[in-house]
Amino acid sequence: MGVFSAVDVIRAKRDGARLDDEQIDWVIAAYTAGEVAEEQMAALAMAVLLRGMSPEETSRWTAAMVASGKTLDLGAVGRPTADKHSTGGVGDKITLPLTPLVAACGAAVPQLSGRGLGHTGGTLDKLESIPGWRAGLAEAEIRRNLRETGAVICAATDDLAPADRKLYALRDVTGTVESIPLIAASIMSKKLAEGTESLVLDVKCGSGAFMKDLARARELARALVDIGAARGLRTSALITDMSVPLGRAVGNALEVAEAVEVLSGGGPPDVVELTVRLAREMLGHAGLDAVDPADALADGRALDKWREMIRAQRGDPDAALPTARHVEVVPAPRTGTLISLDAFAVGTAAWRLGAGRARKEDAVQHAAGVRCLAKPGDRVAAGEPLLELHTDRQESIAAARDTLEGAYEISGADVVSAPLVLDRIAPQD
Amino acid sequence: MGVFSAVDVIRAKRDGARLDDEQIDWVIAAYTAGEVAEEQMAALAMAVLLRGMSPEETSRWTAAMVASGKTLDLGAVGRPTADKHSTGGVGDKITLPLTPLVAACGAAVPQLSGRGLGHTGGTLDKLESIPGWRAGLAEAEIRRNLRETGAVICAATDDLAPADRKLYALRDVTGTVESIPLIAASIMSKKLAEGTESLVLDVKCGSGAFMKDLARARELARALVDIGAARGLRTSALITDMSVPLGRAVGNALEVAEAVEVLSGGGPPDVVELTVRLAREMLGHAGLDAVDPADALADGRALDKWREMIRAQRGDPDAALPTARHVEVVPAPRTGTLISLDAFAVGTAAWRLGAGRARKEDAVQHAAGVRCLAKPGDRVAAGEPLLELHTDRQESIAAARDTLEGAYEISGADVVSAPLVLDRIAPQD
Repeated sequence: MGVFSAVDVIRAKRDGARLDDEQIDWVIAAYTAGEVAEEQMAALAMAVLLRGMSPEETSRWTAAMVASGKTLDLGAVGRPTADKHSTGGVGDKITLPLTPLVAACGAAVPQLSGRGLGHTGGTLDKLESIPGWRAGLAEAEIRRNLRETGAVICAATDDLAPADRKLYALRDVTGTVESIPLIAASIMSKKLAEGTESLVLDVKCGSGAFMKDLARARELARALVDIGAARGLRTSALITDMSVPLGRAVGNALEVAEAVEVLSGGGPPDVVELTVRLAREMLGHAGLDAVDPADALADGRALDKWREMIRAQRGDPDAALPTARHVEVVPAPRTGTLISLDAFAVGTAAWRLGAGRARKEDAVQHAAGVRCLAKPGDRVAAGEPLLELHTDRQESIAAARDTLEGAYEISGADVVSAPLVLDRIAPQD
Repeated sequence: MGVFSAVDVIRAKRDGARLDDEQIDWVIAAYTAGEVAEEQMAALAMAVLLRGMSPEETSRWTAAMVASGKTLDLGAVGRPTADKHSTGGVGDKITLPLTPLVAACGAAVPQLSGRGLGHTGGTLDKLESIPGWRAGLAEAEIRRNLRETGAVICAATDDLAPADRKLYALRDVTGTVESIPLIAASIMSKKLAEGTESLVLDVKCGSGAFMKDLARARELARALVDIGAARGLRTSALITDMSVPLGRAVGNALEVAEAVEVLSGGGPPDVVELTVRLAREMLGHAGLDAVDPADALADGRALDKWREMIRAQRGDPDAALPTARHVEVVPAPRTGTLISLDAFAVGTAAWRLGAGRARKEDAVQHAAGVRCLAKPGDRVAAGEPLLELHTDRQESIAAARDTLEGAYEISGADVVSAPLVLDRIAPQD
């Protein structure tokens, strides 16, 4: 370890050099061990943000973060493994129907997930609105459930990529979140440590997403797929629209209910379309191209798998979901066609109603959120309900109404529907 | 304090924005108070290094660091105050003759100084080779000595610009030393806190200096002078050559002896030239243009002032200086004209012989160092002594010899002497 010095590594990146494999391996291991100080890693992260990293550096950085902890061994689950990661969007409950759907088609889906912070919700928060369901599984339980059910959505264990956890917390307080190589390395280190053989990435693009424009979304998707390819993971990415909330429900229990609609063969068309599209990507990676996921939605196999998955984690799929103490509507101010509905504003309103948390240690309200009674393209009449606000704290409604001011547009003009999937990024030859 | 967030300030600078006065005042005060964490300041320092700061930002940053502690009040010393700061060079003992010289001409010189680290020596280390002399003075002693003697060289007290002390230590371990705005703010915050009315800066340029090329040296000199002008300090800068050691002596007691030679009307021509040139700048700032410092060197007034200054800090100006246990020579390998003698190599050799310290907590050997028996332009004969190595640890001599390998060139060609003062930077109108 004594061969390297943190200052030399920082200075090299600061001056625009490429870091070599040994420098990267050393700095990540030494940071994990506390030998490189937080302030040194902060300076390096800022230098990386401003100077960039090559695909080779980013891939090695990812591998070093994987090597900082243990890797789940999913060799014994007896099925091909396929996973999905979304960069986060408003109303993005796709993991909920997708995981049992792909499992119903023959793959094993090890969805190790996180909690939500800010205006996008977390998958675990959503599932915790189901009475009895628990997010924490031991490694042996994860493996057993994958072998028996094929579908697991649970909390990532602390021993996977600990360097990423440490670095993520540091980046959050040092203004170094917005680095594409560091974002990509963070996402991929967790997925590589989780032991999946293949991965599809849903890179969100638009007001409700971290990436606001297509160029940046493409750049992130390319970085993610490049890391996957370099580390031997079958990987592809879809870039999907997040200017409008996905589906009609935004908020934990509201989204679970919508996911069950989709699993029952109904649900909003955009949620169905994206679920099926992502399922096809995952089944393709798993060598199960012959299976049509649309069939498994239509014939109830996906719903059965959902019930099995929820029960395997002590949830009751038949229990009533929590409902909010207060429900109020936002009426349409005029008659016409809804031509826009801003995802960021709707996500923020749901968060203010209690669906999300401001700090890690906060609790979420399971019943809080927003239901979008109309989506862009729908005709609305003046005075009819446009949005439904759900909360247990009536005093939060005024703030949610403020947030939604100017978040939608109603016009006499025809609306041209925008595509949901904007691009697909595959490994380069 | 709650109006600002460290992450917002970091992100603003990261994205190339100018920080406004309130942001700068807040971040420096909050950092000093420990409310902005070390890792946050490290990220900000890296963003400043890579994005730069405008003269207005740099001046405000300096003022905020001054405001982090107390400012010496020198209003009652009864003489115009003038100080000098050097960015550090090999054999740079100019402060030693300059301080009593300028005091002998009627100004008060409050030289609050630091210790050396690395290949350039520290003024306090040099003076501590004088038996009995002490560097630590209380504030009242500083004021009294300035009033009575006009000359004080002592350690800076801990309550001057504490933000600078904290930031300097952080920059050292985070690869953020090499930022001209941060270097300039650091130097000027200490000088402004010291309470002087005027300042001349000796910005060293060349192999033995922190600034290796003239463009960077000019940039630093301009930044320093701009801060002085903005904060109401009469300031100018000389850019002086540091490709060759200054004078013939490098090392603590060796340099004190050379300073006394200069004060006695002798000494190496380059040391005399620079001392007189800097004294004229200082006397000009102090409104004492009519006094010629060359006279005060020639007639013994400067030497008398030196003796008075040393005695005022309990030193014995008549005591013998320590001598090294081992003195060995490096002979000239051929006959010819010495055309170069690398300052960095000589400084490093002196450091290895024991004249400097590798870590703050190390002690220095007062008698260790190098004497340059020839300077560029001198004729040398094969086998005659070129350099003298002084040390108390004979085992360090081999390393010093290695360092000096290739550090000088002897040629049959004529040598063109390079100017000592390369440029002068004055405030802009």
